Amino acid sequence: MGKFTFENRRSIRQYSGRDVEPELLNQLLSTAAHTQTMGNLQLYSVVVTRSAEQKAALAPAHFNQPMVQQAPVVLTICADFRRTSTWAQCRKADPGYDNILSFCNAATDALLYTQTFCNLAEEAGLGLCFLGTTIYQPQAIIDVLKLPKLTFPVATITLGWPAEEPPVSDRLPLQSFLHEETYHDPTPADIDCFYAEKESLEVNREFVCINNKETLAQIFTDIRYTRKDNEALSRTFIAALRNQGFL
Amino acid sequence: MGKFTFENRRSIRQYSGRDVEPELLNQLLSTAAHTQTMGNLQLYSVVVTRSAEQKAALAPAHFNQPMVQQAPVVLTICADFRRTSTWAQCRKADPGYDNILSFCNAATDALLYTQTFCNLAEEAGLGLCFLGTTIYQPQAIIDVLKLPKLTFPVATITLGWPAEEPPVSDRLPLQSFLHEETYHDPTPADIDCFYAEKESLEVNREFVCINNKETLAQIFTDIRYTRKDNEALSRTFIAALRNQGFL
Repeated sequence: MGKFTFENRRSIRQYSGRDVEPELLNQLLSTAAHTQTMGNLQLYSVVVTRSAEQKAALAPAHFNQPMVQQAPVVLTICADFRRTSTWAQCRKADPGYDNILSFCNAATDALLYTQTFCNLAEEAGLGLCFLGTTIYQPQAIIDVLKLPKLTFPVATITLGWPAEEPPVSDRLPLQSFLHEETYHDPTPADIDCFYAEKESLEVNREFVCINNKETLAQIFTDIRYTRKDNEALSRTFIAALRNQGFL
Repeated sequence: MGKFTFENRRSIRQYSGRDVEPELLNQLLSTAAHTQTMGNLQLYSVVVTRSAEQKAALAPAHFNQPMVQQAPVVLTICADFRRTSTWAQCRKADPGYDNILSFCNAATDALLYTQTFCNLAEEAGLGLCFLGTTIYQPQAIIDVLKLPKLTFPVATITLGWPAEEPPVSDRLPLQSFLHEETYHDPTPADIDCFYAEKESLEVNREFVCINNKETLAQIFTDIRYTRKDNEALSRTFIAALRNQGFL
């Protein structure tokens, strides 16, 4: 395998039997902590899952995607104002972080930290998959990991040594997401241009056909990320935020 | 200057007169797009500010931090379900992304993308500062950059070639944010251990003294991130989310 370059990165969902040594993992987690954070407060925490029991308990919260139980390590990264608030309480200070802005500050810290960790881990030859399902059923994760108030799971990484080398995914052209000075709303002609490659890919054309849809966009709106699901999951997300003390 | 290593990274707030060449910037922005995103939809956009007029217009939204007008380039990274929704509408698909879960999905994509960009830019020798102020007065940024519905600014980066080499900031020890299998709430003794180094730093002790406070934590709770500010900014944040169609 050649030197890692970011242009060739791909998500890895199949892992070899080799363990991720705790020393390596801890070194990567420590180094990633040099990512900038709000007021240098490091408003995040990482729960490491290695036990088969805990992986099995987490799996349903991630719609039983097989990586959760197959990966040697699962990391759940949490927005965390708990530790900072406890520090304040131990130091005659009155913390005021039980609000939505503070949740967003901590979630930002946690996600930036997560991505540096991903960059470093992939550079070290590890393979990983980011599970976007983390915020779909957060209460289930909160219960399994015993996350206290003022913490909230925002990212999950399944991590191991790669046992596959899938193709690199397509990406939209730069001009589709780059705006000079002000936002320029895409015209229908722009949309045709931006999405032409994605829509022409054989794998996507087959996906449309198998699902009896007319367009690729319908795969997303009608099957993968539907209004009905998004609205139901928005309600459970809000309820979990409230339970954790951020609303 | 030696090879960049992440352990030595520091935020850069002073930039040389040298411009950031558009070719280099575009290459970094393109490469960063290999970061994983939800369903490979790339739910983000980047507004590049180079004009002095637009920098001056953005500055108040960032509490007039001088980097905004001094950096050759300011990047505002937005959660963006606009382009994807327009694509859907052009393809006989009904997008259902005007809800809080979709905002969180897009914000996640945008923040992960932002951090990969930061890591690549710093590796290329650029210096940058992440402005956490972006979500404090989002409506002002929305107005200046003419951000349409279903977009929302979540990160701002001031970018240029470094004209300073500040010391590397302290970080909390790994055990302060690492939890094995389940979350372990810190005891007062843990807190003493986790925060000992930070509290003992000369710069922090002076800061406490100058501000007539008793503890470092009070600097954060009473001056930098107060309950009153957090609650007021939470209200304006929610109002901006509503204006942009995510609530």
